Amino acid sequence: MISSEIAPHLEFKNNGSKIILFVIDGVGGLPLPKTGLTELETAKIPNLDRLASKGVTGMITPIAPGVSPGSGVAHLALLGYDPFTYDVGRGAIAAYGVGLKMEEDDIAVRVNFAGFNSAGAVVDRRAGRLATEKNMELCKLLREIKIHDVEIIIETVMDYRSVVIFRGEGLHPDISDSDPQATGEGVFPEPVVALKPRSRYAASIARTFIKEANDILQTKEAKAIAELPNGQHLGILTRGYSDRPKLPLMQHLYGLESLGAIASYPDYRGIARIVGMDVIYDGHELNDEFDKLEEVFHNYDFIFFHVKEIDSAGEDGNFDKKVSLLEEIDKQISRVEDLSPEVLVITGDHSTPAVYKGHSWHPVPFLLVSKWCRPDNVKRFCESECRNGELGLFHATEVMLYALGNAGRIDKFRA
Amino acid sequence: MISSEIAPHLEFKNNGSKIILFVIDGVGGLPLPKTGLTELETAKIPNLDRLASKGVTGMITPIAPGVSPGSGVAHLALLGYDPFTYDVGRGAIAAYGVGLKMEEDDIAVRVNFAGFNSAGAVVDRRAGRLATEKNMELCKLLREIKIHDVEIIIETVMDYRSVVIFRGEGLHPDISDSDPQATGEGVFPEPVVALKPRSRYAASIARTFIKEANDILQTKEAKAIAELPNGQHLGILTRGYSDRPKLPLMQHLYGLESLGAIASYPDYRGIARIVGMDVIYDGHELNDEFDKLEEVFHNYDFIFFHVKEIDSAGEDGNFDKKVSLLEEIDKQISRVEDLSPEVLVITGDHSTPAVYKGHSWHPVPFLLVSKWCRPDNVKRFCESECRNGELGLFHATEVMLYALGNAGRIDKFRA
Repeated sequence: MISSEIAPHLEFKNNGSKIILFVIDGVGGLPLPKTGLTELETAKIPNLDRLASKGVTGMITPIAPGVSPGSGVAHLALLGYDPFTYDVGRGAIAAYGVGLKMEEDDIAVRVNFAGFNSAGAVVDRRAGRLATEKNMELCKLLREIKIHDVEIIIETVMDYRSVVIFRGEGLHPDISDSDPQATGEGVFPEPVVALKPRSRYAASIARTFIKEANDILQTKEAKAIAELPNGQHLGILTRGYSDRPKLPLMQHLYGLESLGAIASYPDYRGIARIVGMDVIYDGHELNDEFDKLEEVFHNYDFIFFHVKEIDSAGEDGNFDKKVSLLEEIDKQISRVEDLSPEVLVITGDHSTPAVYKGHSWHPVPFLLVSKWCRPDNVKRFCESECRNGELGLFHATEVMLYALGNAGRIDKFRA
Repeated sequence: MISSEIAPHLEFKNNGSKIILFVIDGVGGLPLPKTGLTELETAKIPNLDRLASKGVTGMITPIAPGVSPGSGVAHLALLGYDPFTYDVGRGAIAAYGVGLKMEEDDIAVRVNFAGFNSAGAVVDRRAGRLATEKNMELCKLLREIKIHDVEIIIETVMDYRSVVIFRGEGLHPDISDSDPQATGEGVFPEPVVALKPRSRYAASIARTFIKEANDILQTKEAKAIAELPNGQHLGILTRGYSDRPKLPLMQHLYGLESLGAIASYPDYRGIARIVGMDVIYDGHELNDEFDKLEEVFHNYDFIFFHVKEIDSAGEDGNFDKKVSLLEEIDKQISRVEDLSPEVLVITGDHSTPAVYKGHSWHPVPFLLVSKWCRPDNVKRFCESECRNGELGLFHATEVMLYALGNAGRIDKFRA
């Protein structure tokens, strides 16, 4: 069942209860062949295990059986939105992530600084992992670009990534990416073309912008900011042309008055703003995230707390680092428990097994603690135990209903 | 979730991986009262048990809770087609099963040779389990029937069963069966009538055909081919008037380039052809099926391997035979394992418990082995263990997504 589809049939009440949705990005794993144990099964996580004993558990399917999700869509599913109904583009997530707001006809697009060889081939999609400060200076230069009838808003996201909004009448987002998502001698940027006739004008604007940006990035001024190695020159790649997201807000769906997000990564802040949350933290230190939670907890009905690092360790194939990061989170988790939210949910948006080195489709351990949950026999927060939990294997899109129900926020359904 | 409905949202890649879907027809069972053990729990199946230990397991619901499926629809569900959306008639399955192809306005119908008493009552719906060779000779006689403006194509299926296609303009398949699905002194063939006004013409064609066929089957020539005991005379019963199946092909749905079917029974070959598979075996010896698999394995992305005998033993109420057939399959199963497909799925289309003597709704053990599956704690391939598997109880229509995902054939879903 899909929370956002069931919600309109329900009556919600605001009983002052507080819900924390604690998302450990990429938490699920796969066993290391030599031990037969997953990352969670290897880690010493006594606090998470204690919460599993107190709570009710299960496993969630992020999107659909066998389907590995991107980060954005996996979070939308966790928040109850049907991933096959609601589509939020990468550009929009980036724009909201840096705090921009989109208007009706806006198009947002992710712009990456990249390194090209003299023939124009893409040799480094991340421009040597350009520093955020240099990115900010380059964006200043790009703000000189003027296109007739179109306002151009440019913001740095992080590292080599930035975002552009094109604002003007008659713009539509059906435009192909220039980012080939590959590098090499023979790999060139893809042509930026309209995928539907209505987007021809917007595509021509995008091409003009890309050309002018690439010209500026080859000037002396730009080179003075960022000089790439091996004679590479700077340029941009564009990805994820998107229009303004049209999702019902969580306030309206679930009767939650105040929603806050603590997330150490811009994309998750973007998702949070798109569904109606305040972003109440924009740093990126785990310890600071917990400090912030303690500080703002009493101001919000619902807090989405996002930890990113685990996922990155999984993507890097670093099993041991994933294990030690899980142990680090475990040490802090009692700080969350001590706040005594009426409902504490701990889960992930998807699995990122270190042995798989990427987001995967594997079910994700799920745990919910509340005064009214029915504890099952599961004593540990890990794959091999949570699969025996009362909630069984269920869809991520059902999590919000469990959270709201256990918080006493859903009225009795009918007579 | 329904694989064929989710598939259009996904991007598939052809990475050269190979999937084997091994279907043990009617594999699920019920405990024998005196032992409390099902057929699978009674059988010594060390190889299937080893695969269960290596793989991830669960139980599948064939169609819907409490619903016992026919063979055709149960297979369509396993292949990912919503059984409540797609309907393939018995006539069409029979036609494709013998290698016929249907055109736009064709109607296919199953024709059974049957025994009637002098009053015309149906006393043997299978004409003494008529031999296939005699059926072929009788079909030759029936090919003499000519109906104005309608081409009639007649083929033997097996034993007492054959199939007829009526080809001509203005034919529609909403026609009632003549087969009363019962026998006895007072049981007569049902009248063949149009169930919708548009099918009146086709129903009159069908009645003409039945009358002429019954006349031919009472001639000396026919009697020389097949003489029935106790003064019975031969005739036909018709069942399952169907139009051309309109299913999206598996190639188009799932991006699989080459699909092959090894099935020892015509109906399963029919289903396979209808969804786009090559039928690469048309014998009916278990050992030969495995030989064929080894021979053709490398030519196909996806192989549907079907074993029929278990189901028949279940329908006959022969618990011991079902057990010994399971043991026989187990001895051969390492031949499948040795091919090292990227994904090996072993399950059934439904349960056929010997104590129940028929297809049933009971969940069916499911097992998937791949390099990327997350093994659970299940060590045996049977009902009482697979129900503790990681995949829980899920719908048959999700099997294809699990198979394709584990084969690395589904691209990451969105950003």
